[in-house]
Amino acid sequence: MQFSAIQRILGILLMVFSVTMLPPLLVSIWYDDGAYSAFLIAFIIILMVGAVSWIMVSDQRRELRLRDGFMVVVMFWTVLGISGSLPFTLAVDPHMSLTDAVFESISGLTTTGSTVIMGLDELPPSILFYRQQLQWLGGMGIIVLAVAVLPMLGIGGMQLYRAETPGPMKDSKLTPRITETAKALWYIYLGLTIACTLAYWAAGMSLFDAIGHAFSTIAIGGFSTHDASIGFFDSTLIEMIAVVFLLLSGVNFALHFIAISRRNPKVYLVDSEFRFYLAVLLFVAIVVTVVLYTTGTYSDLGEAFTKGLFQAVSIGTTAGFTTADYSLWPGFVAIVLLFTSFIGGCAGSTGGGIKVIRFLLLIKQGLREITRLIHPSAQIPIRVGQKTITPRVVEAVWGFFALYVASFTFMYLALALTGLDLMTSFSAVAASINNLGPGLASVGTNYAGLNDPAKWILCFAMLLGRLEIFTLLVLLTPAYWRK
Amino acid sequence: MQFSAIQRILGILLMVFSVTMLPPLLVSIWYDDGAYSAFLIAFIIILMVGAVSWIMVSDQRRELRLRDGFMVVVMFWTVLGISGSLPFTLAVDPHMSLTDAVFESISGLTTTGSTVIMGLDELPPSILFYRQQLQWLGGMGIIVLAVAVLPMLGIGGMQLYRAETPGPMKDSKLTPRITETAKALWYIYLGLTIACTLAYWAAGMSLFDAIGHAFSTIAIGGFSTHDASIGFFDSTLIEMIAVVFLLLSGVNFALHFIAISRRNPKVYLVDSEFRFYLAVLLFVAIVVTVVLYTTGTYSDLGEAFTKGLFQAVSIGTTAGFTTADYSLWPGFVAIVLLFTSFIGGCAGSTGGGIKVIRFLLLIKQGLREITRLIHPSAQIPIRVGQKTITPRVVEAVWGFFALYVASFTFMYLALALTGLDLMTSFSAVAASINNLGPGLASVGTNYAGLNDPAKWILCFAMLLGRLEIFTLLVLLTPAYWRK
Ligand SMILES: [K+]
Ligand SMILES: [K+]
Repeated sequence: MQFSAIQRILGILLMVFSVTMLPPLLVSIWYDDGAYSAFLIAFIIILMVGAVSWIMVSDQRRELRLRDGFMVVVMFWTVLGISGSLPFTLAVDPHMSLTDAVFESISGLTTTGSTVIMGLDELPPSILFYRQQLQWLGGMGIIVLAVAVLPMLGIGGMQLYRAETPGPMKDSKLTPRITETAKALWYIYLGLTIACTLAYWAAGMSLFDAIGHAFSTIAIGGFSTHDASIGFFDSTLIEMIAVVFLLLSGVNFALHFIAISRRNPKVYLVDSEFRFYLAVLLFVAIVVTVVLYTTGTYSDLGEAFTKGLFQAVSIGTTAGFTTADYSLWPGFVAIVLLFTSFIGGCAGSTGGGIKVIRFLLLIKQGLREITRLIHPSAQIPIRVGQKTITPRVVEAVWGFFALYVASFTFMYLALALTGLDLMTSFSAVAASINNLGPGLASVGTNYAGLNDPAKWILCFAMLLGRLEIFTLLVLLTPAYWRK
Repeated sequence: MQFSAIQRILGILLMVFSVTMLPPLLVSIWYDDGAYSAFLIAFIIILMVGAVSWIMVSDQRRELRLRDGFMVVVMFWTVLGISGSLPFTLAVDPHMSLTDAVFESISGLTTTGSTVIMGLDELPPSILFYRQQLQWLGGMGIIVLAVAVLPMLGIGGMQLYRAETPGPMKDSKLTPRITETAKALWYIYLGLTIACTLAYWAAGMSLFDAIGHAFSTIAIGGFSTHDASIGFFDSTLIEMIAVVFLLLSGVNFALHFIAISRRNPKVYLVDSEFRFYLAVLLFVAIVVTVVLYTTGTYSDLGEAFTKGLFQAVSIGTTAGFTTADYSLWPGFVAIVLLFTSFIGGCAGSTGGGIKVIRFLLLIKQGLREITRLIHPSAQIPIRVGQKTITPRVVEAVWGFFALYVASFTFMYLALALTGLDLMTSFSAVAASINNLGPGLASVGTNYAGLNDPAKWILCFAMLLGRLEIFTLLVLLTPAYWRK
């Protein structure tokens, strides 16, 4: 393990992260909301810690090895998650415990979007802005993680996207080095954010809300500046804008990159993952619509469809925005949506869950096993688009799925052990590991009422989901620490 | 498809099955309980239908092909399941609808053991005897299915047990032809049943109850002649007898066969599946004991352990016997036990669930994927005991697991759609697909209160679980029906 190299990177990271305290500081001064000192102190502390960490090892120039990558990625999210909680603990309003502050920060950075704060509408604007910004920063990290880092580490079959990416990406070679990849993707990310801000603003949000919700939309985060989430605006237009930008953000950003650099929208249509992603969300939207209409939840079919579509996309992409009436919907709809969040966004997007491509591979492998029963001696390759998937990738995806289910089960049991009822436990773990946000029962809109151990378990669940299980679990094996 | 050959087999099967109406008929006459006509009429109808089916094609002598095996197995369980409901529909007491009669019959034959009858203690003895016998007959079918038929069909990795069985079974060649295998296994099955009957009887049960509960113990069925299940007897001795015989019945019967024919109990100890099976149940028993003791559910540690052990083994092997106080236990215990039932018994036993060997392979593959992240270029074979598992078997086990989860999810959603609450739906599907029996919430002890569509969905779930998913699903693919 190259501890000095890791420390150096973390030092730089913290110094960069400290700068993100300045925009909310400016917001605080602009609105004169009295919260500026929290951001100022946090800025100084994080900058100092970062600088000291860096200076201690700045003369050492050892290269990171591949294996160190796991550690860097895990440290990235945990250290920033904890550092990000500083303004919450330092602020007077809201007055938050350490547990709550860390929960809110990790929920923000992992773009989960579950909150322990009640009464968002009364908070200082700078705190609200900071929460939205946390999600946006988290989203930036996720894209680079998902497009460039995880494929390199070979996590859960994502080596699929390593050297030769499937289908349309094959002959266009994504800018190779991580930093350059990051820059290219961040331009797209920034572009989407600006477009989304303008659309929300034009549709009637205040500029402050428009920026904030664009942040949490493009990051598929789900934080809102209002307790009632998107439902606060009571506007079908705003809901449809959210649908469009969530759909875009749930797509592999590498695919966006290729489509843009080739100026060819056909790139999307030939991508198997993209097509399956749209098909799943459309199917769920229709099922939800039919149930909402036939149960008389909405007597107007058009209204049932826009509500159904919004909720299917919001939960299916793992954003977790809600509208006011969602909690009154039939339980069947709630559970269909919760299960859809397990599929989640495309690989390389800001969405959570298992990821569409893995789901597609699981289905194909399941069907292959049935076919093999009928034709025991046939050689049946698994294909995605034009590309044949190697057994190694298929095995990695299986391993991912099994560990996902196993992790889910253990955390579910752990949560039940803290005394939560079974539906709360189940949905809270699902909403956390899928980086979705809102659950059912006691955690339908807010996690404030949970006990502290439960909140820490859910912090772990959010990190586990965001780091695609393996990255975090590998650090817990003795083999990783052996020379 | 060799329809005539399949029809011929089913004809013979029905004629044989009709004979099983005679023991309850004799019981009815012995106790003079007034239910004898139900069994007499059922006997005649089933015999006639079987005979006619057989005579129609008795001059044709076409051989079955491997592919027909799936159809025969599925027909076996569905046709007998429906035929077995005849005495319930014909009886005056209990007065049952067609749905309820089929549910009870399929629950019996698949050794699920969930019941829609309330007031068992007041039923005619012949009906009670018939229910217990259904489970015992189902268990006989399952052993042959699991040891001889499924490995031949290559279902879900069970080809592992086909030509060369792993570890200790390798050099002893199980009697090759199915009929001879069946005979050998049935002697063991019968021997266990007699021993269990004597033990229960000696421990204080009436001979009638002893036979009935031995039937449902060795079949890991869980039907009882009392509403209070094993709790009726309020005897730690009886509970411990149940534990011993359930543990024995949850073991691969092929392993019993080898141990007996070699007169060498060491055969068990070197079997990886057997060891893992005991370890899991012991671990769960200890967890349950600790929770029962620390929550003050039982203030005596010894009592907490015997209660914990009984329930861990009863649910873990998927028997589903309960004691009276079980429903008052903490929710955490209930959910731990419900999840344990997903692991289930060993392959080749009368237990349900995913099966211990598959679970073991899933864990080994999950761990291998983690190791591969650290050593990307290493060749890491998966071993069970001495044997290296081929990638083909690993893939088949993954396919099984994925389809298990997918089937579970779809049936859970379907049940929720019929209007059941989420915990009832979840636990009912789990208890049915795992062939466990009792669920939680509204189906904690009895399924009588469910709506008819829900009961049919659960019948499907029980068959799906018993036929190890693939056998049933393969019939639903167009490829199966293509020439
Ligand atoms: K989210
Ligand atoms: K059972």
